[in-house]
Amino acid sequence: MKNNIGVIGLSVMGKNLAFNFADNGYKVSIFNRTIAVVDTVKREYAGENIYPTYSLKEFVGSLEKPRRVFIMVKSGQPVDSMIQQLLDYVEEGDIIIDGGNSYFKDTTRRTKELSERGINFIGAGISGGEEGARFGPAIMPGGKKEAYDYVSEMFERISAKAYGEPCCRYISENGAGHYVKMVHNGIEYADMQLISEAYWILKNLGGMDNKEMQEVFKAWNKSELESYLIEITSNILGEKDGDDYLLDKILDKASQKGTGKWTNLEAINLGVDISVITSALNARFMSNLKDERKIGEKLFGESLGIYNGQFKSIDTSTIDRELLVRLVKNSLYISKIVAYAQGFKLLLSAQKEYGWKLNFSEIAKIFRGGCIIRAKFLNDISDAFLKDGDIDNLIFTDIFSEEIRERMDDFRDLMSRVVALGIPANAMNSALGYIYSYSNGNSSANLIQAQRDYFGAHTFERIDKEGVYHNEWNNEN
Amino acid sequence: MKNNIGVIGLSVMGKNLAFNFADNGYKVSIFNRTIAVVDTVKREYAGENIYPTYSLKEFVGSLEKPRRVFIMVKSGQPVDSMIQQLLDYVEEGDIIIDGGNSYFKDTTRRTKELSERGINFIGAGISGGEEGARFGPAIMPGGKKEAYDYVSEMFERISAKAYGEPCCRYISENGAGHYVKMVHNGIEYADMQLISEAYWILKNLGGMDNKEMQEVFKAWNKSELESYLIEITSNILGEKDGDDYLLDKILDKASQKGTGKWTNLEAINLGVDISVITSALNARFMSNLKDERKIGEKLFGESLGIYNGQFKSIDTSTIDRELLVRLVKNSLYISKIVAYAQGFKLLLSAQKEYGWKLNFSEIAKIFRGGCIIRAKFLNDISDAFLKDGDIDNLIFTDIFSEEIRERMDDFRDLMSRVVALGIPANAMNSALGYIYSYSNGNSSANLIQAQRDYFGAHTFERIDKEGVYHNEWNNEN
Repeated sequence: MKNNIGVIGLSVMGKNLAFNFADNGYKVSIFNRTIAVVDTVKREYAGENIYPTYSLKEFVGSLEKPRRVFIMVKSGQPVDSMIQQLLDYVEEGDIIIDGGNSYFKDTTRRTKELSERGINFIGAGISGGEEGARFGPAIMPGGKKEAYDYVSEMFERISAKAYGEPCCRYISENGAGHYVKMVHNGIEYADMQLISEAYWILKNLGGMDNKEMQEVFKAWNKSELESYLIEITSNILGEKDGDDYLLDKILDKASQKGTGKWTNLEAINLGVDISVITSALNARFMSNLKDERKIGEKLFGESLGIYNGQFKSIDTSTIDRELLVRLVKNSLYISKIVAYAQGFKLLLSAQKEYGWKLNFSEIAKIFRGGCIIRAKFLNDISDAFLKDGDIDNLIFTDIFSEEIRERMDDFRDLMSRVVALGIPANAMNSALGYIYSYSNGNSSANLIQAQRDYFGAHTFERIDKEGVYHNEWNNEN
Repeated sequence: MKNNIGVIGLSVMGKNLAFNFADNGYKVSIFNRTIAVVDTVKREYAGENIYPTYSLKEFVGSLEKPRRVFIMVKSGQPVDSMIQQLLDYVEEGDIIIDGGNSYFKDTTRRTKELSERGINFIGAGISGGEEGARFGPAIMPGGKKEAYDYVSEMFERISAKAYGEPCCRYISENGAGHYVKMVHNGIEYADMQLISEAYWILKNLGGMDNKEMQEVFKAWNKSELESYLIEITSNILGEKDGDDYLLDKILDKASQKGTGKWTNLEAINLGVDISVITSALNARFMSNLKDERKIGEKLFGESLGIYNGQFKSIDTSTIDRELLVRLVKNSLYISKIVAYAQGFKLLLSAQKEYGWKLNFSEIAKIFRGGCIIRAKFLNDISDAFLKDGDIDNLIFTDIFSEEIRERMDDFRDLMSRVVALGIPANAMNSALGYIYSYSNGNSSANLIQAQRDYFGAHTFERIDKEGVYHNEWNNEN
């Protein structure tokens, strides 16, 4: 009796995925480079389905054919190295799955290299952290559809469920799965930044304390904003540290692990405006310049009424809090829509660039459970794409264009106040600017083209006739 | 009698540089892959100093030692290919100069490869287009200082002059010259976009016609805004096309050639916020989505009072034009300062990353002539860096922090109006947001860190004690 699947790499993510498969009735071979870990992990699992192996040969030999080998090692060179070693033992038709946080172009390369040797390769984006891996992650598998068919049932069974459906769908060829995971992470950056700007506006413009803000977030989590990140923000706001709130003791330097960078690099390469996601990344960069920001506050803060990081100039007692909460809520919601729209717009460009066939409605469904950006309004996104399948932008769909229009006056009102007062809310502002750019059939880019033709003879098109033109500009107008 | 320098690649840039050397009294060998071009170019030059050659062997043989070989071919593979061919003829100590628009990492690689063979390589960023190449470009040479010493006099002689000084300075090792040129191009994108936003605000909020705006730009060109781009914008605004203004007939789709992308990719890789430059790139991306913008205008424009691309809702007759022109001028000037500050901030990070030694005061001087971003206020930038050499950001210098403070109220006033009305001015808004981020010693990034620790145990620092902490968050607050 051979085992159904094998997991290589037993750090917390790999271990938890192995246990998750075992929980679901699959017999799982486990292997780890540091052999001692294998027995430790075996002992940690109470049930029956975990089978330790102590060499790659034994590991591969223990699996039913076609073999399913799940790699959970560090992304980059370790993945290539492990694949190389596996090639001594696997056979034509076997399936290797990379569940790590791999760069999508590496996945495409590996798919091709292994395909030439008759081995099936699946690059699966997996979201949800340790908890997700253990009890149900969101899974975004890319590669050959025929290969995926060998693992689809197992993957869907271990994945998170949302509204009764598994948070796992076949994405498309090659690195498409890891690509969607990358964009997911970009959206996650934006979502977190937008929430932190909402918090900052309520605190500084509304003069609200953490307890009051917690109530606001609790109420929001029963509205169209319902989501995991809103929920944990509410819990964070209530967390005490002795007599104080813990949040107020946390240093405002935010780190990042690189996938937010990938999303932005891709957007630039493909020529897609993802300004809200870029603002979120920039905010993390700026957060780390704490010492420089202190210098900046000395130089520019006073004229904005900022002293010791507080907006002393804002008289919060005169603020209509109920109104403010509504303005912030509606601004946050539109901004979130724009962040997701930009992410999906990038996917639309990627689909053309890399020759994939992506189903946006189904991708939205994957995000509904198991992962950090899970949110109720992903149902609407899924519906919107289902209804308006070939649409150029999520904000053009009937559902979301209406949602935006209804809230637009509040968004404009809040942003103009925030801009006047000096409260940084660059991601929200980028979202508003994105809608403004889209609201103007005519733009000022005619002047850019005139300048380019003036200094570099780069030519321009005209609105009144076809063709490409160059003008001999008069230098003495 | 051998010649002083040789130019390979006689398209317009190479040809004009050859003529420029010849004008300055240097004897110039010329060569081109398509041989017929050599004689055509020779005939085009009236003077004596141009010497046609018809093979690479003859070309190299015609040069005095150490030979100076100036390559002006298409960037990328053609440069490598030409270097490979030259290696059959050049000798130890000879100097190859790449004056094309090469990617800085290629330049670093080539410098290393050639150095191993005893050949000196100089990667020279050259700005100013055809006119600049012919009569005086800005030159940014990178490579070994000792190698540069062999060409410094010639380069400085053919370069543009500004305030009596040559717009050519040795930059630093390896690809540093091409890097500075790349950042120059990023700033150029920002500068053009900011001017086009100023034009759009004057037109839509001020209701000014092209003739009136031309007068405004003419006046600005006698102020701290004095610059080549302001000057040509004034000429562009006055250019007629029959009874109409040509500008109004130009289609608002702006192209780009890629170096603006490079700057943004670098900023993301090095973790530097260059939001104004990014906004300018995004504006070009968005400009090309003309059909989508028309859809967007239908969906969102009406609520902003936009019909057929015009802001019908703004009653321009009630606007105090004199005030508006002042607000726009001051906003444009601060935004320009921020765009340059972001470019120099990227150079500061690059210097650390790549081990260069950059003199920012001297780099600002190079930009004063020959290139597209030449502007009077580069004198102030040069002075500011000279005075505050090791400063973290240009906006912190005495000169510019004062210039910003003086204009800040106007900037905030204009941006809050523009944001309320729906006029897209994303680059200007990004500049304001950048100053706001820098004006707040405290930011909302504490919430980002709390979220990261909550869902991923990523840990955080505290403001009240040293160390790195993880909290077991209460899910039921």
